[in-house]
Amino acid sequence: MSEEAASRKAPGALARLSINQETIKQWSLPELAEGCAASGITQVGLWRAPVQEYGVERAARLMRAGGLTVTSLCRGGFFTESDAARRAAALDDNRRAIDEAATLETGTLVLVSGGLPPGDRDIAAARERVAEAVAVLAPYAAERGVRLAVEPLHPMYASDRCVISTLGQALDIAERFPVDQVGVVVDTYHLWWDDQVPAQIVRAGTGGRIAAFQVADWVTPLPEGVLLGRGQLGEGCVDLRGFREQVDAAGYRGAVEVEIFSPALWARSGTEVLAEVAERYQRHVL
Amino acid sequence: MSEEAASRKAPGALARLSINQETIKQWSLPELAEGCAASGITQVGLWRAPVQEYGVERAARLMRAGGLTVTSLCRGGFFTESDAARRAAALDDNRRAIDEAATLETGTLVLVSGGLPPGDRDIAAARERVAEAVAVLAPYAAERGVRLAVEPLHPMYASDRCVISTLGQALDIAERFPVDQVGVVVDTYHLWWDDQVPAQIVRAGTGGRIAAFQVADWVTPLPEGVLLGRGQLGEGCVDLRGFREQVDAAGYRGAVEVEIFSPALWARSGTEVLAEVAERYQRHVL
Repeated sequence: MSEEAASRKAPGALARLSINQETIKQWSLPELAEGCAASGITQVGLWRAPVQEYGVERAARLMRAGGLTVTSLCRGGFFTESDAARRAAALDDNRRAIDEAATLETGTLVLVSGGLPPGDRDIAAARERVAEAVAVLAPYAAERGVRLAVEPLHPMYASDRCVISTLGQALDIAERFPVDQVGVVVDTYHLWWDDQVPAQIVRAGTGGRIAAFQVADWVTPLPEGVLLGRGQLGEGCVDLRGFREQVDAAGYRGAVEVEIFSPALWARSGTEVLAEVAERYQRHVL
Repeated sequence: MSEEAASRKAPGALARLSINQETIKQWSLPELAEGCAASGITQVGLWRAPVQEYGVERAARLMRAGGLTVTSLCRGGFFTESDAARRAAALDDNRRAIDEAATLETGTLVLVSGGLPPGDRDIAAARERVAEAVAVLAPYAAERGVRLAVEPLHPMYASDRCVISTLGQALDIAERFPVDQVGVVVDTYHLWWDDQVPAQIVRAGTGGRIAAFQVADWVTPLPEGVLLGRGQLGEGCVDLRGFREQVDAAGYRGAVEVEIFSPALWARSGTEVLAEVAERYQRHVL
């Protein structure tokens, strides 16, 4: 089914869909804007590096001109350095990320908290350093209309990428701050295995803490480094619709952002991938 | 430090150490028995395939002759098939595993529960199938002096190997059965990232449910397939001594079994690896 057929077939069905640009990494920002317009998709999630390369102001103008809402900017974070100078540098970089989010008029900056510094074996202390950094940054972000979104990453990333591994841990940090300043990300790829997730989604939704909902499927074998092995929607073992129904039941009304890191998708035509995502979104998530 | 130097240096220091045979996979069973005897190590963990290849009765005689206690047999499990014939076959195979454990005079059969069958997206139901299989097998095992040990594996194995991902989930299943019939495995490699683990170790220890304590370190990058990337003791980010102190404080008095799957260790001299494990065990775990 082409993207036009998808939008013809189900008018309004794509209203909540947001395309994270990493899903179609082979596209430039103008190609992404054009592709979304052609498909009736009005929301995108962006990443800092390609936005900086294109120019932040210029990217913001492009999104506005295309009628596109930026649902999230990835990513701030990496707060867990124990060295004072590195921590200060990380805070500075996060202030720039917040400024970029404000320029892009997105309300949500996704935070990937950081892993354990070399030689460090105290993950509880590293989690506390995350909370301390959020305390410093949240008011700065709030002044610029940006909310920080703590993202729990799958436990396989706990040592080198993100010491926040469960939705419960993310909420333990977020709830220390005003609800309009700090929320959490619910990402199916990271959380699908956890039997505590249904209760934690209720906790997050009831508290108004769900800042973003991202979807990708889980497939194996995992590739070396485990970063780029996410599955296309419906290809793996995640009950994507069940997740979406749970966040909806918990009161979430925001975007459903498709974020798939997959060399297999990147090797194909962007137009074809976008059409497939739109079709599978309707079949497996909506 | 050689293995002899290690045992000379700390008499009795290796009393709780058990060497899982997969850690020194390059060794045959007789080499393992000989190496342990030369190093003052009196306990080993065994795996079904190499034991079957050598002969189960013959392996039992070899262990007895060497004065070696078998602390655990890996592994039973793979209970999550939805197909009735396959589930029956899995139960039969597990009865054989129990018989083998009894022959080896080990009280502990480690269970790796199994992943999700292809196309299955209901992980909660798969976990229930695990509990149902344990219900069938636990009395059979108890009659033969064998206790089933439910092992939670890291969540990165949840889809293809083990739907039981946390110590809490393992205890939720184990506690449905008599304490002398079903316990759990506490393995640092699988559990180190989880902030609920300290409380769950107390729960497990208080209830007398810790059937085995296994140690390995966590290192990255993870290799493709994520099976064979475990770290030598002290090489990674796990607070191994902290874990050992927690299981001890919870009342565990059993073996500390070193189980490291690492091609880097397998490529070296078994004698050298055993000496290194003994030395690092004393430095990082004891």
